[in-house]
Amino acid sequence: MTIEENRILLPKSELPASWYNVLPELPEPLGPYLGADQKPVEPSALAAIFPKALIEQEMSNQSIHPIPAPVLEALALWRPTPLIRAKRLEKALGVKSRIYFKDESVSPSGSHKSNTAMAQAYYNRQEGITRLTTETGAGQWGTALAIAAKHFGIDVRVFMVKISLTQKPYRKVIMNMMGAEVFPSPSEVTKAGRDALAKDPQALGTLGLAISEAVEEAASRPDTNYVLGSVLNHVILHQTVIGQEVQKQLALAGEKPDYLIACHGGGSNFGGLVAPYVPMIKSGEKITAIAAEPISCPTLTAGKFTYDAGDTAGFTPLMPMYSLGTDFQPPAIHAGGLRYHGASPIVSSLLKSGVIKAQAVTAEQVFKFAKLLANSEYIIAAPESAHALAVTCLKALELESLGQSACLVFTLSGHGLLDLSAYESAA
Amino acid sequence: MTIEENRILLPKSELPASWYNVLPELPEPLGPYLGADQKPVEPSALAAIFPKALIEQEMSNQSIHPIPAPVLEALALWRPTPLIRAKRLEKALGVKSRIYFKDESVSPSGSHKSNTAMAQAYYNRQEGITRLTTETGAGQWGTALAIAAKHFGIDVRVFMVKISLTQKPYRKVIMNMMGAEVFPSPSEVTKAGRDALAKDPQALGTLGLAISEAVEEAASRPDTNYVLGSVLNHVILHQTVIGQEVQKQLALAGEKPDYLIACHGGGSNFGGLVAPYVPMIKSGEKITAIAAEPISCPTLTAGKFTYDAGDTAGFTPLMPMYSLGTDFQPPAIHAGGLRYHGASPIVSSLLKSGVIKAQAVTAEQVFKFAKLLANSEYIIAAPESAHALAVTCLKALELESLGQSACLVFTLSGHGLLDLSAYESAA
Repeated sequence: MTIEENRILLPKSELPASWYNVLPELPEPLGPYLGADQKPVEPSALAAIFPKALIEQEMSNQSIHPIPAPVLEALALWRPTPLIRAKRLEKALGVKSRIYFKDESVSPSGSHKSNTAMAQAYYNRQEGITRLTTETGAGQWGTALAIAAKHFGIDVRVFMVKISLTQKPYRKVIMNMMGAEVFPSPSEVTKAGRDALAKDPQALGTLGLAISEAVEEAASRPDTNYVLGSVLNHVILHQTVIGQEVQKQLALAGEKPDYLIACHGGGSNFGGLVAPYVPMIKSGEKITAIAAEPISCPTLTAGKFTYDAGDTAGFTPLMPMYSLGTDFQPPAIHAGGLRYHGASPIVSSLLKSGVIKAQAVTAEQVFKFAKLLANSEYIIAAPESAHALAVTCLKALELESLGQSACLVFTLSGHGLLDLSAYESAA
Repeated sequence: MTIEENRILLPKSELPASWYNVLPELPEPLGPYLGADQKPVEPSALAAIFPKALIEQEMSNQSIHPIPAPVLEALALWRPTPLIRAKRLEKALGVKSRIYFKDESVSPSGSHKSNTAMAQAYYNRQEGITRLTTETGAGQWGTALAIAAKHFGIDVRVFMVKISLTQKPYRKVIMNMMGAEVFPSPSEVTKAGRDALAKDPQALGTLGLAISEAVEEAASRPDTNYVLGSVLNHVILHQTVIGQEVQKQLALAGEKPDYLIACHGGGSNFGGLVAPYVPMIKSGEKITAIAAEPISCPTLTAGKFTYDAGDTAGFTPLMPMYSLGTDFQPPAIHAGGLRYHGASPIVSSLLKSGVIKAQAVTAEQVFKFAKLLANSEYIIAAPESAHALAVTCLKALELESLGQSACLVFTLSGHGLLDLSAYESAA
């Protein structure tokens, strides 16, 4: 097998023409989003901050959603992304298992977040919106949205979790270069932010609070909508290009996956890889899908399945999901994208019904395998993606110790070139 | 033209099988390297710090040098690199000219430096060397060497110009992750470094001094050789894969270049693009090759053609080149790779004989067009590469104002994701 054969590339013509909606395939239908009054939220109530097209996707029972031409054209700037056989990593681990990774780091923002950013910017622009607000943790989502908004001609204001902004100041530089405004959250520009600062002027910030700030501002201005980079059903829908491409690429390689592994913060990266495989898993194919999360923010492995709000101030509807509670204050771990108290309702439902599994790893494990990847494949993984890498390597080593081997696929959801402060102590 | 057609890709089989040596094509033969005694340096005198194969390449009169199989295999990890038609940049500039860029940022180190790093690590390992020293400015070369040394199983010690290390601390994190040791230069571990610190404890460092430190250490240990990331003939030789690929890619696009533009620090990026075109330029084809440099370190545009040393302490031979003098202290400009007092003898010779041109640009121009590239192509260029971009854009605008258009090709020698401090004020 040559180096070239290690990279499984698809031509542009193989870019998926539609998104795959897993909602109709869930073993149990998702419970409705609830208002503060515990009554189901009407779609019209969401219209103050979301475009109609996305609200329809959020609640759709249609399996296939064609991708609009301008979004396809935007995705074609970098997609299809490579699927890479990590042969040097396998050798470094000393395993007979075949390890593949889907390289989402090649996008303009350096992560999978661009997949949904382009779609969301497009639909908002289509419905006359000229300004968007959002939150960002590690900054990958904010960067992706800044680029997508530039592409479709929309202004952007980003609320970035303060601890992440401090650790990764250069994400702000990129977002600014792309024309976006960036505020540390908690900020002084929203009531939610001011209230949080009044309570604790030193607050590190959380994704939950940053969402409150972004939603508050969007709800108060008719020209402004809110966009979210993860958690919601339509976001996972947009990310299914990942799993659909992986299916084609593994087929080209003559492989069937035994394990599908992705990190889990809000669920979009994991959902994007796994959703297209749900029908196969349900029909009995032996595919183990594992959501990798940090032991310090163990939403799926130690959270409670409940109705909870997506944000701290309670502006969002209550959603049926695993949650550590909106008051959960994760430590300042460096995988900023994995510091969320909640989880995607879709991923939560799949976990609850046993279709998928979840596994938590320590920072030590994450950094150890990130260094091994750097030393073997010459790639610096985002700390978030390194959680998926760590679970993959641990599984491959476990199989090896049992005299077994398998085909493992993980998502390299992003590169870590803007997250090197995270690796400073580990290097 | 679709987005796909904007990316001109070559299959692995089109990776150049040999390097192109421009030495026999120089209008005037290069003067010999001279010792401190003003007498020509014998090849044997270089053997203390260089492997024989590289010394032979340095002085070769052979036009074609086949690339050894293990180097080809290493290059195939990321080569051939894409040639990209920057249509959105053209639109943002409002020009009818066709602008292409050769994207060297896709290498494991994020820059063209990996091309020669792999070759030099290989030849050193072949001749039994187990340890290498080098200098680095912005850190791109140090990163490239750290990865190449890891690939071929060699230890590395990097002396990084102190001001660059301060501005770009994360380059050190990557080099450390790849297993290399990194010291700020001036350092305490060499006499050259200690002397410089005694003279000025606050010295920002220069490439010239960092070279002195690396050469001193290599000369004092038999297991250790010295490697240089630019300037020398064999380095330019290894970089000619760039220009050779561009020739094939432009032919595929049905284009002939009117302008070839690359930034110039030591000359390897510029030489790599332009050397394969020298026979055509000499034979009268209308191709204007322009070396882009910062107005604050104007080696080619304001330096003197002379015999000068490559380093501050005078450990290197005297070379015939444009130079600002070994005592030149460039300001702390953010394009660390362009802070060198000297220039490649090959590029110097080509400039002196009128085969190529040089142009200096201001930091303001560089940052303005870097932002335009970000906003149109969604790419963050290395500040070095942004010099080539700026010259390209200025030329396209000038042509437009004259009612003309042309085919302009520049090298995106690297991405700027680790250089964002440079853009902080400009963003």
